Amino acid sequence: MRIDIITLLPKLLESPFADSILKRAIEKGLVEVHIHDLRKYGKGKHKKLDDYQFGGGAGLVMMCEPLFESIEDLKAEREYDEIIYMTPDGEVFNQPMANTLSLKGNIMILCGHYKGIDQRVRDELITKEISIGDFVMSGGELGAAVVSDAIIRLIPGVLNDESSALTDSFQDGLLAPPVYTRPADFRGLKVPEILTSGNFPAIDDWRHEQAMERTRLRRPDLLED
Amino acid sequence: MRIDIITLLPKLLESPFADSILKRAIEKGLVEVHIHDLRKYGKGKHKKLDDYQFGGGAGLVMMCEPLFESIEDLKAEREYDEIIYMTPDGEVFNQPMANTLSLKGNIMILCGHYKGIDQRVRDELITKEISIGDFVMSGGELGAAVVSDAIIRLIPGVLNDESSALTDSFQDGLLAPPVYTRPADFRGLKVPEILTSGNFPAIDDWRHEQAMERTRLRRPDLLED
Repeated sequence: MRIDIITLLPKLLESPFADSILKRAIEKGLVEVHIHDLRKYGKGKHKKLDDYQFGGGAGLVMMCEPLFESIEDLKAEREYDEIIYMTPDGEVFNQPMANTLSLKGNIMILCGHYKGIDQRVRDELITKEISIGDFVMSGGELGAAVVSDAIIRLIPGVLNDESSALTDSFQDGLLAPPVYTRPADFRGLKVPEILTSGNFPAIDDWRHEQAMERTRLRRPDLLED
Repeated sequence: MRIDIITLLPKLLESPFADSILKRAIEKGLVEVHIHDLRKYGKGKHKKLDDYQFGGGAGLVMMCEPLFESIEDLKAEREYDEIIYMTPDGEVFNQPMANTLSLKGNIMILCGHYKGIDQRVRDELITKEISIGDFVMSGGELGAAVVSDAIIRLIPGVLNDESSALTDSFQDGLLAPPVYTRPADFRGLKVPEILTSGNFPAIDDWRHEQAMERTRLRRPDLLED
């Protein structure tokens, strides 16, 4: 898999891919992540990328031309399965979407800034608009990193123990049950007895009950339909 | 405002605060962000931080002792308004939560990894559990960066034009309307005529209609209740 990220703040994206499983996935050759600096497509001697919005109002808008040119340059080199724009009014990102995207070959992600990008770019070039949630950030970079992380960890071979991802929250539509590790008694706080019983069928039942209970309490919406 | 982030991968959090408005907010003294390396609280000569889970199953769990000690060390220095744990089964982060948190004085954020942290830490020390969405990432660091970004940009003086944040998506319960900037004609793609009409009351009406229409089409859930 190959992920191309277009941004006007490439520095923001350095460290999220420089450690953790993302770094290892890149080193193992399981994924390529390329960060592209939009600035080089800026116009005029100030490398301008944004301008005031038509109709007035606070906040700048990213201009058509640099975005068209940067996206077209990448498209000239390879086919993209999706050209994604990170925006708070996009489709809300979730685990099924991460699963689907993890099966793609080439993905491009465009990070917005300020009041967003000129609508004509969205109408003409973007194939998928993704929001990571109902909140506003200073730019799309962290969203692009979040989407990349959630996708990359699903690529076979990235996690050491593949079964590990299958017991995550959301993969079975439930929140994960509570987990405990040693010591069994920490300052008088004890782990539930069942977990040290060695009775594995009973432990499985307990975990399922806890997952159901936690989901019912915290996220009843996940149990509907 | 002060944000303390506890993580076992401090490198991951370097660049999100090293550019953009977050960097400027820190430089202006509007917010302090301190990243704490959990590794120094690791146990034994290997600085162990995690262990197998009781009851069996794939994935490691972060141990009680390093987490208790790191959190207690920070609490000994100052009062915290919230001690937040980033976890997929937490309360889903949204703009009202960002608004509330942006008014706090001191916030601590704990980043999980692997299968999560020992439940006893959650029971005893955590005051708020936040999820940035219904998907799983390799750790809590990007979530902590997302929450910090969404909060920090709301602190007065961080954005150059304060009215800018008020017209963002979600601040009025609607998605933002489409935006356009120069040129008015790009390769034959024209901006809607209304926006170049100079008739500002009509432009306001058009934007409100577009915001309603976009919300109705993309996120009808935002219009309920």
